[in-house]
Formats: sequence, C-alpha cells, structure tokens
Amino acid sequence: MEVLKVRTASPYEILIKHGLLKEIPEDLGENFDFGKVALITDSRVRDIWAESLLIYLREAGIKAELFSFPEGEASKNMDTVVSLAREMLRAGFDRKDMVLACGGGVVGDVAGFLASIYLRGIPFVQVPTTLLAQVDSSVGGKTGVDLPEGKNLLGTFYQPLRVYIDPDVLSTLPEKELKNGMAEVVKYGCILDKEFFEFLEQKGSTLYSLPQEEIVHIIYESCRLKAEVVSKDEKEGGLRRILNFGHTIGHAIEAELNYEVSHGLAVAVGMAVEARLSEKVGVGKKGVAERVIELLKKLELPFRLSHLAPSLEPEKLLPHLSKDKKVWKGKLTIVLLEDIGKAVFFKNPPRELIKEALEELK
Amino acid sequence: MEVLKVRTASPYEILIKHGLLKEIPEDLGENFDFGKVALITDSRVRDIWAESLLIYLREAGIKAELFSFPEGEASKNMDTVVSLAREMLRAGFDRKDMVLACGGGVVGDVAGFLASIYLRGIPFVQVPTTLLAQVDSSVGGKTGVDLPEGKNLLGTFYQPLRVYIDPDVLSTLPEKELKNGMAEVVKYGCILDKEFFEFLEQKGSTLYSLPQEEIVHIIYESCRLKAEVVSKDEKEGGLRRILNFGHTIGHAIEAELNYEVSHGLAVAVGMAVEARLSEKVGVGKKGVAERVIELLKKLELPFRLSHLAPSLEPEKLLPHLSKDKKVWKGKLTIVLLEDIGKAVFFKNPPRELIKEALEELK
Repeated sequence: MEVLKVRTASPYEILIKHGLLKEIPEDLGENFDFGKVALITDSRVRDIWAESLLIYLREAGIKAELFSFPEGEASKNMDTVVSLAREMLRAGFDRKDMVLACGGGVVGDVAGFLASIYLRGIPFVQVPTTLLAQVDSSVGGKTGVDLPEGKNLLGTFYQPLRVYIDPDVLSTLPEKELKNGMAEVVKYGCILDKEFFEFLEQKGSTLYSLPQEEIVHIIYESCRLKAEVVSKDEKEGGLRRILNFGHTIGHAIEAELNYEVSHGLAVAVGMAVEARLSEKVGVGKKGVAERVIELLKKLELPFRLSHLAPSLEPEKLLPHLSKDKKVWKGKLTIVLLEDIGKAVFFKNPPRELIKEALEELK
Repeated sequence: MEVLKVRTASPYEILIKHGLLKEIPEDLGENFDFGKVALITDSRVRDIWAESLLIYLREAGIKAELFSFPEGEASKNMDTVVSLAREMLRAGFDRKDMVLACGGGVVGDVAGFLASIYLRGIPFVQVPTTLLAQVDSSVGGKTGVDLPEGKNLLGTFYQPLRVYIDPDVLSTLPEKELKNGMAEVVKYGCILDKEFFEFLEQKGSTLYSLPQEEIVHIIYESCRLKAEVVSKDEKEGGLRRILNFGHTIGHAIEAELNYEVSHGLAVAVGMAVEARLSEKVGVGKKGVAERVIELLKKLELPFRLSHLAPSLEPEKLLPHLSKDKKVWKGKLTIVLLEDIGKAVFFKNPPRELIKEALEELK
C-alpha cells in the first residue's frame, strides 16, 4: 500500500492500493470514531461500485445508507445538494456521522460541498472512481457546484479525513475517461517533475492497459506533486495557480464549445498551445513545446483545436480569455513552461502571440 | 471607541461606537485592500439604515451595490442565497470584492453563508442592526440557512474581517426587539460574570431608554464574554455549548410554538426553568433561580410559560427535548447554574425534575 500524507491545515492521508475497496470498512473502523456513513454516489457508479461498497460496510457492522443522484455535470447544482441534505436529515444523520463520496469529480465536488455545510460541517471521506478524480480532484479540498452563470461558482475549501484510491475501479472506465485523467497527469510532469515526464514518455499508451505497478506510480506521483503545491498554498493565494497550466486556453475551449468537450482533452490542447506560447514570448527553452506535443501524441491525446471540433477557430477563443478567473484588474496571468518540469507565471502575454500559437495548432 | 479583539483562527476586531455607521467607509478603506462592496440587507433595514450606508460608502469613493431580500425568517433559505449569488455574479463581483451584511440575525446568517461559499469564500464584514445580532450573532462565526426539516441545518463557520456596532441604530428598533436581545445579555451574566449580572440588576428596565454609556457597556461585555468562549472552542466541540444555557428549554418552546415566539423571549423562560432545575438536581446554590427570575422581572422579560402562550403545557415540551441537537447517543446534556456567573454541564437530568420545574413556572 502506498500512503501519501497531505500537509494541509487539517492533514490527511491518501491510501493507494489495488483491491483497496474491500479494505475501506476495516480501515475506517480502526482509524476514526464516527456514527453512520452516508454513501453518496451517482446513477452510473451506484450499480458498478457503490452498492458493493455499501455491502462491505454493512458486513463490517457499519451502519450505512446509500444516496444517489443522476450522473453528469447537470446534477452539479444546489438543488442536488439540498435534496441530498434533506434525505440525510430524514434518515437521521447528525454531526458524528460521515459523508463518503464514491464516484468521479462531480460526486466528489457535490458530496464534499454537502459535507462541508451539513450541520456546519461533518467528516468527509473520498473514494474517487475515475482517473481524473484520483489524480486531481481528490487532492486540494476544492468542493462546489455550478450556477447558470458558470461552473464551480459556489463552494468551499474542505479537506477530507482520508482518500482511498483503488486503481482496480478504473477497469470499468471507458478509455475516453482514462485519457481525460491522463491529461492532468501529463500536466504534473510538465510543470513540476522532468523525471515523471520521462516516465510517461517511456510508457506511452501502454498505460491505458492499466499495468498494475505503473498505474499506482502515476497516481501516487500525481497526488504527491499536487499535494506539495496545495500544502504550500491551501486557498489559492499564489503558487497553487501553477496548476492552471493548460487551463487558460483549456477553459476558453470548454466555454466556446459549451462544455460539450471533456475537461482533460481541452486541457491537453491547452497545454500544447501554452507550451508553444512559452517559446514565442521568449520564456521557454527551444523545443519544449515539441516535447510536450510528442508526449501528447504518444498518449493519444489531442494537441490541435481541430482534434476537438472542426469548427473551432482561434479568434473565437480570444474573447473568453478576458473573462477567465485568472484575470485581475484587466491583467491576464498565464502559466508558461521554461523547460519540462519548470513552470513560471507570466503576465499579459501579447494577444498576437497567443493568436499565433493558436493558429499554428489549429 | 471600544475595540474588542476576537482571537479565533483568523482573528478580527469588533468596533463599538455611537455614530460609527458614518465612519465605516473610512475605516474599511484604511484597513483593508478590496474591490467593490456587496451591501446585503433586508426589506426593513434597507430603507432605515442600509441606503444611508450605501450613500456613505459611495461618497467615500467605494464602489458599492445594494442587494436586499424580504425581511423575516422565511427568507433564511438556500433560494435566497442562490439568488443573491446570481445577482452578485451578474453585477461582476469577484474574489477581491467583499460582502457587507447590514441587518439583524437573518441578514447576518444569510450574508455570512453567502460570503463563505461565493467563489469558495470572499471577505465578509458585519454591521448588525438589532441588539440580538450585536450581542450574539455577530460573534462566533456561525452562518447558515434553514431547511423545511429545521433551523440552521446548512451553514458554515466563517469569521468576519471586522464587525462594526453602532448602538445608534437601535433607536429605530421596537422595544420587543430590544427585549429579544436583552435575554441573551442576561445569559452572559448568568453563566460567566457575576459583576455584569449585578450591573444589569442595578440598571433594570432603564436600559430600554438606551442610555449611551450603559448600552456600549452591555454590548461590549456581552461580546467580550462570548468571544472568550468562542476563541477557546471555535467549532463547538465542548466549552462553547455553555452558551446553550436557557436554550434547551427555549428551543423546545420555540418548536412547540412553531417558531411564532421571539427567540430571546423563549430563552428568557428557558433560563428561569433551567435555573430552577439547577436547584432541583442539587447542582445550584439555593436562591440562584430566584435571583435569575428577579432580574428577568426587572427587565420586563417573561419567566413563565404562560407569559408566552396561555396554552403552553409542560408535558408538550418534554418530547422536544429528545430531538435537541444537544442529545448524543440518547443522552441529554444540559447547562445548569452552580451560582450566578458559574455554569456547569449536567448529563441526563431526571425527566420528573424537568417536569416539576416546568410546572412551577407554568
């Protein structure tokens, strides 16, 4: 078992192990003092994994109830949170009880937000079931829901008691979803760790067959790298924004395509464009963009706008940049690469260079 | 100006001064770095005080917008929070902007909750305009909204940047609302400070004419006493529950009367009953209940069930006690008085003694 300590204000551990799902009840019982478990999931994960977990919990003598909501981003809203809260109240859940999120990013975000506001906060445990959730959303304590005005506009920073990652649950994930998570894995290599980047170059698309040791390694390294950043900057004051590499362009693409594209795939193209921009503004070492693009190719990830949608024109993306959350007092701060494994903040990249980079990767 | 430092995890100051309302813009500008102000209020306070404050802010060159909702507990729900958030988003409020709550307890709870979840938390400042909010809800960081299943069931602990208390705003408050706050003032004397209790005995109902010096004194002392408790126990693990004196019976009364009674008046009767119970179980010094009741009389506060509603029968209150938030694993922990200024926790008071105390104060 790999154990990673995350040193936020309330520190916690991430456990990573094949077959961990069955061991969760025993570990919970040994390490935490709690009443009942509210197992929160969505309509997809419910049948595949959450009902099994419910049985394991009950077999171990833990009182548990399952609460689920329809899968997908459309459920990520305050109505879902309020109806889950009301179901939990009617089932008698109180402050000593616990929320356990079993699912992908939407389940984690909704259940974490619910746990953080239910009776002003009750304990929270995460069991992420997608690669994206395992390597990204289960570290950092961001919770939240969408509003018609945009994504993640209401939420909290709330750390879990513990995160249980069982790579075996990835076996039921469509390959498209593995790629969605792999883009964030590539990001950690790009911004923080050349050696990890080289590991990915070496393994390439063989990773999608889920070789046991390698999958534990990429999950562990991704969580470790994200945890290092987050523990230095829990509430997104500064350093944490380094994790936005690929996301400035990525978010513009998502917005322009009305979020009908996978987050990870949009970020993959965003990384290619931002790596190219790094060279154009004179920050990035020559060849850094090519190396990022080569890795994206090896991992069968998109690196051109046309890979996502044939009609995606560079000039349509530019207006979205000024609406980005990273804009403050009219200035856009973007994360660029000096080299593989070394990211820097860069203020106000010239608009024409952004456009050039986009055109070259149309 | 009286300045009280509250030593929670993020420490802040409470400023108390006659005429402070006009000085808020200058103080904000000198002490904090922020963008715009979202001034949140309700339909009652809007016309009386909030629009004046809006003008003061704008005259000082601060960009401010006013957002209001219908007055009353019925507005304390998630729909109000979501629609305020959406209005703020459409008006362009971002992470560097600030929420300023101007109003009573409902405004503070709703606006504080909103501030704590808007873009995962933005700065928050409070300008309480009722005596109850000034002496109670502006200290402690509790925010929240009601659900059909009960009060304050969703919320956060979120400390303000600063609290501005101007006793002049109490001049427009109905006397009933002054009494509502005065019950909590009496509570602080009962549980924590004999000298303060004696000050209240000495001044009695003259306090309702709002003598300047005395009003600042009772607000300062109440906030000081509450802040001492809260800074030792920010998230209600233990000591903080001492503030529940009078509230176990008080909440049962509120629930039985469908919340159609003022919180403070229910707590006043609750304190009389719980002081009487203190003597009955052998914890309270003889005469302590009589002294509490005498002070309630002097302050023209209710101390019998019949003062609140003629039909309020003791046996109807008992079932509510087992539903109280202070019940854990079937045990009721109640706060009792050893003496004036000295409270203790007491587990499982005999049901027949509770009934006796209620019957004697029917």
